[in-house]
Amino acid sequence: MMALCTSVKILRSCGLTIRRPLVFRNVCLTLRKEIRSCASPFKLQSIQDLNSFVPRSHTCGELRSVHVGQEVTLCGWLQYKRHNLFVLVRDFHGLTQIILPQNENLSMLNKMLSEAPLESVVVIKGTVLPRPTGQENPGMPTGEIEVKANQAHILNLCKKLPFEIKDFVKKSEALRMQYRYLDIRSTWMQQNLRLRSKMVMKMRQYLCNHHGFVDVETPTLFKRTPGGAKEFVVPTQEPGKFYSLPQSPQQFKQLLMIGGLDRYFQIARCYRDEGSKPDRQPEFTQVDIEMSFVDQAGIQGLVEGMLHFSWPEEKGSLAIPFPVMTYAEAMNSYGVDKPDTRFDMKIKDVTTYFTSMQLGFVQEALSKPHGCVKAIRIPSGAKFIRRKELDSMKKLAEEQFKQVVVPVIVRSDGTWKCPIDKYLSDELKESLTSATEAKTEDILILAAGEHNRACAALGKLRLDAAAWLEECGVPLRDSTAYNFLWVVDFPLFLPKEDNGLELESAHHPFTAPHPDDIALLHTKPDKVRSQHYDLVLNGSEVGGGSIRIHNADLQRWVLQEVLKENVSLLSHLLEALEYGAPPHGGIALGLDRLIAIIVGASSIRDVIAFPKSFRGHDLMSNAPDIVSAEELQQYNIQVIHSPSSPREE
Amino acid sequence: MMALCTSVKILRSCGLTIRRPLVFRNVCLTLRKEIRSCASPFKLQSIQDLNSFVPRSHTCGELRSVHVGQEVTLCGWLQYKRHNLFVLVRDFHGLTQIILPQNENLSMLNKMLSEAPLESVVVIKGTVLPRPTGQENPGMPTGEIEVKANQAHILNLCKKLPFEIKDFVKKSEALRMQYRYLDIRSTWMQQNLRLRSKMVMKMRQYLCNHHGFVDVETPTLFKRTPGGAKEFVVPTQEPGKFYSLPQSPQQFKQLLMIGGLDRYFQIARCYRDEGSKPDRQPEFTQVDIEMSFVDQAGIQGLVEGMLHFSWPEEKGSLAIPFPVMTYAEAMNSYGVDKPDTRFDMKIKDVTTYFTSMQLGFVQEALSKPHGCVKAIRIPSGAKFIRRKELDSMKKLAEEQFKQVVVPVIVRSDGTWKCPIDKYLSDELKESLTSATEAKTEDILILAAGEHNRACAALGKLRLDAAAWLEECGVPLRDSTAYNFLWVVDFPLFLPKEDNGLELESAHHPFTAPHPDDIALLHTKPDKVRSQHYDLVLNGSEVGGGSIRIHNADLQRWVLQEVLKENVSLLSHLLEALEYGAPPHGGIALGLDRLIAIIVGASSIRDVIAFPKSFRGHDLMSNAPDIVSAEELQQYNIQVIHSPSSPREE
Repeated sequence: MMALCTSVKILRSCGLTIRRPLVFRNVCLTLRKEIRSCASPFKLQSIQDLNSFVPRSHTCGELRSVHVGQEVTLCGWLQYKRHNLFVLVRDFHGLTQIILPQNENLSMLNKMLSEAPLESVVVIKGTVLPRPTGQENPGMPTGEIEVKANQAHILNLCKKLPFEIKDFVKKSEALRMQYRYLDIRSTWMQQNLRLRSKMVMKMRQYLCNHHGFVDVETPTLFKRTPGGAKEFVVPTQEPGKFYSLPQSPQQFKQLLMIGGLDRYFQIARCYRDEGSKPDRQPEFTQVDIEMSFVDQAGIQGLVEGMLHFSWPEEKGSLAIPFPVMTYAEAMNSYGVDKPDTRFDMKIKDVTTYFTSMQLGFVQEALSKPHGCVKAIRIPSGAKFIRRKELDSMKKLAEEQFKQVVVPVIVRSDGTWKCPIDKYLSDELKESLTSATEAKTEDILILAAGEHNRACAALGKLRLDAAAWLEECGVPLRDSTAYNFLWVVDFPLFLPKEDNGLELESAHHPFTAPHPDDIALLHTKPDKVRSQHYDLVLNGSEVGGGSIRIHNADLQRWVLQEVLKENVSLLSHLLEALEYGAPPHGGIALGLDRLIAIIVGASSIRDVIAFPKSFRGHDLMSNAPDIVSAEELQQYNIQVIHSPSSPREE
Repeated sequence: MMALCTSVKILRSCGLTIRRPLVFRNVCLTLRKEIRSCASPFKLQSIQDLNSFVPRSHTCGELRSVHVGQEVTLCGWLQYKRHNLFVLVRDFHGLTQIILPQNENLSMLNKMLSEAPLESVVVIKGTVLPRPTGQENPGMPTGEIEVKANQAHILNLCKKLPFEIKDFVKKSEALRMQYRYLDIRSTWMQQNLRLRSKMVMKMRQYLCNHHGFVDVETPTLFKRTPGGAKEFVVPTQEPGKFYSLPQSPQQFKQLLMIGGLDRYFQIARCYRDEGSKPDRQPEFTQVDIEMSFVDQAGIQGLVEGMLHFSWPEEKGSLAIPFPVMTYAEAMNSYGVDKPDTRFDMKIKDVTTYFTSMQLGFVQEALSKPHGCVKAIRIPSGAKFIRRKELDSMKKLAEEQFKQVVVPVIVRSDGTWKCPIDKYLSDELKESLTSATEAKTEDILILAAGEHNRACAALGKLRLDAAAWLEECGVPLRDSTAYNFLWVVDFPLFLPKEDNGLELESAHHPFTAPHPDDIALLHTKPDKVRSQHYDLVLNGSEVGGGSIRIHNADLQRWVLQEVLKENVSLLSHLLEALEYGAPPHGGIALGLDRLIAIIVGASSIRDVIAFPKSFRGHDLMSNAPDIVSAEELQQYNIQVIHSPSSPREE
């Protein structure tokens, strides 16, 4: 017991022993009695009692001048020491200044507290005093008072830290992850995890208590779903048999509806093996909801009500209902199915001005199906975007979208700088200026090509340009704005990436077709819109759902005839639909991403207590890890050794 | 689309078409408007709105005579049909009687509803009427009224069911599991799942809203723990590296305390690969709680408060605090560490009367360490327990406990029937009678042997005898009683089963020793009591927890010197304890078992929506399933084929 002995020695040298590590029970017994006998009136009044069941009388963020004169007991961590004059004690709730006694008979206490290492854990008893006039700290919630200690115990010592527990100390992501338990002591992580807990609790209250939803836990050890290539497998003791960790409770929630459960929700753990993606991790959480006898408007109203009710007070109030945009409009105006509507810079169609232009690539673009010319305007772009940035924008459009884009710089004198300037008549320039509302020192980006491709390229450049302008200090997006948006009327099927003649589900095969497009299902399935809806927040998809197919024959037709799937893996669901399945629909919100956007975190890792790294590693415990061949034997599997292993991150 | 077409034909034959399966959106749109225009006052008053966001105006269990005259819209399943006179429509909330219109111009509606198969899904509009005098049904909550239909849609048809959805229809467990979505329509499953959801919600309110606990999700893809032989492994795309599915969030919750999170809870999914056990399944749920700066009394008070607050109203109120019993007393009086205190029949020590008895096996038993004679009394046992039962009791004691037991039958005339009768003096009989309070027609069971073994055997026979008496109609345990009990002061270590000279943790290696026994830790670790506590309900363990070791040196000592564990797998936790770990403790309640006991279910499968079978199978979807060698390749594993596979259940 080396380390303890050393620390004890420090304290012994000042005539005190740190009590044995198990003393805390005795501390509790004594303090509990004392607290009971002088119960704080604030404790009784507060609805949420943060000091119940423990021997402290107050948290470190609770004391105000109204407590002056009271005997209090605080528990926490030593955050700061000033000679032998005072210490700051911290807990999750705040900081309190503790005055060390200067009188002879308490000199041991003074010595003990002023010599204990920072981040040691203490329990301190004392009297609340007003701070001397002029020494109040209005920037500190407890800044009106200080506590004069008359009794203290060191409950645990802290050895030298890998980084200081101070909000202004910058730490690398890897160090934060390795010592996650220290990182969680930061105000940032405490606030994020607590806001998440509170918001989820309010969602539950809204669903359960106000609207009769039933919280049902569904299995996570399940069976592989068709096309479930991203599902982790779990070997069992039955030779060759595996569970799968499901990507969502989709099948179970539909089966619950068929089971008459009517209104289901679950804060559900889901799994997806996607390797390394910056804002995903192998396990994630979704707010999973399903209702019977509902339509799209019903689910949208429910989600709006739930977010409005659970919205964190400190983030202002949330306006509902949310605006709705069709998929077609989103693609047209923003080039993306998750528009960031916090700023304008929408894509404009300017085809009409170019139809008679005698320029090869424009003519070629317009002669093809869905050929068009589109434009975006970057306000004040000429002030901030240099040739280098323009070149990389052009390169990006060509590489990612195979789309040529042409920049137009509107000089301060109103003349245009543009590689195809000589082909642009004054009349055309005037029309373009009017259509795009271009002003001097703006930049226009033009794209001639197939409609979807031109829009997608300009949509990406719109976002990149906005990010660049903001980096240059041009305020474009309000960082306190929360722009929710419903995107609706998605296509039901999309051509497969590897074979454009075959179709795959745009979302999943259980999505119901749009009622107005049913006639097309047997003739032009690629033209059928779906009853799918996405919830978008500030340009990120934070949820998606749909009205489901509740008719077995229709479901079988979609799976077999349109998607050419092997239906045997879903026979239980198809059978279930035949036994009186009600119309139903639902949604899943990505909780990690939603909370990250609300708190303004750049990564979901800042709202997850113990996240995995980009490569799916837990850097604290070093998971995943090697398992011995003997241990694997009970699962009837063995490792196939590949010639080279990837490097550690 | 065969099945649909056939059903449509039935309906077409009565001049009506079942609308296309996707009509529901249109139904919604129409009904929603109508409902808005005649909003029910009851809907506005109710705190929990079960009809929000859907086009129904009321549930099928909601209408009373106060609604008479209202136009209502109900959605549900056809539960019963009587000629073409009326139908009963059911949802999760109850049943409503629908009167079919008899007038000519609604004959199609009559025909459609009376010809649709049972369990078809319908939406019905109509007027609430009082039932004709004498036809009220007081046994039915909606029995005062009926609804005269004036509009209806069949939303989905039901094909022939594998079993009727009626509570009195007995179904085999296997059939229930195969068609779980139909089984969930039963009142029993609806009530169980809804009670579970409500009770968990109230637990959350108590913890989050009243006592400032933070709901934190911890990873389920983690690293193997020492001795984690029962942990499922999850292969990753990194060759030879595996995650493990943890048996509990133990390490994470301790790390959260070290992270200053102070009050944590989680309704946590846990995993244990135990093969087939009747009341366990591979994934289960625990109410997981941890607090800093707390002692045993604090956790116990918290759990009592939480259960009291969340206790289902319909189960009466729960008396707190719960009684406390030491482990030693439980073993002494009940022969088990989870006593069922709903009935007496406690084990009595009668050693003193046998010390001078000249009977070989008694003498031998008493001469050994911890030798004793123990007795239980089975009240009225002689009336119900025959020779056959007594023989199997004796056999069980010998086979399971290697303990000889001797039954004594107290005849109605007061004389004893007992194989060792001739060795029992009148004086001894008198003493025994007085010590055990034996009456005529009772049975005594005597056991001479090593203390723990004799108690364990009698403890088991006590439970078996009680079950038998109850089967014979003797009321012994109040089925409405909920006897909670804390069992405390467990030993910290137990001798290993395979090597009695080595010690293992009685619970887990993070459990703190009892403060009074610390001195023994280095000298007689087998004598050290722990700060572990179990929560027992009606003889079942429903929870367990402890105050944890918060001192790194003590933790290292326990792991290395006492348990001889390889500490490298826990190096992150040991390191964390050195950085200012607060004293902390917690508990985990087995939610599935707790709810099962509360609702009176004989198996946890009745309180889990989609449970696994004894062998860990999902009989509905047929999980676990075979995964192709190609799919396994991305995880760098292959199946080792064993010569024979176990049979399917």
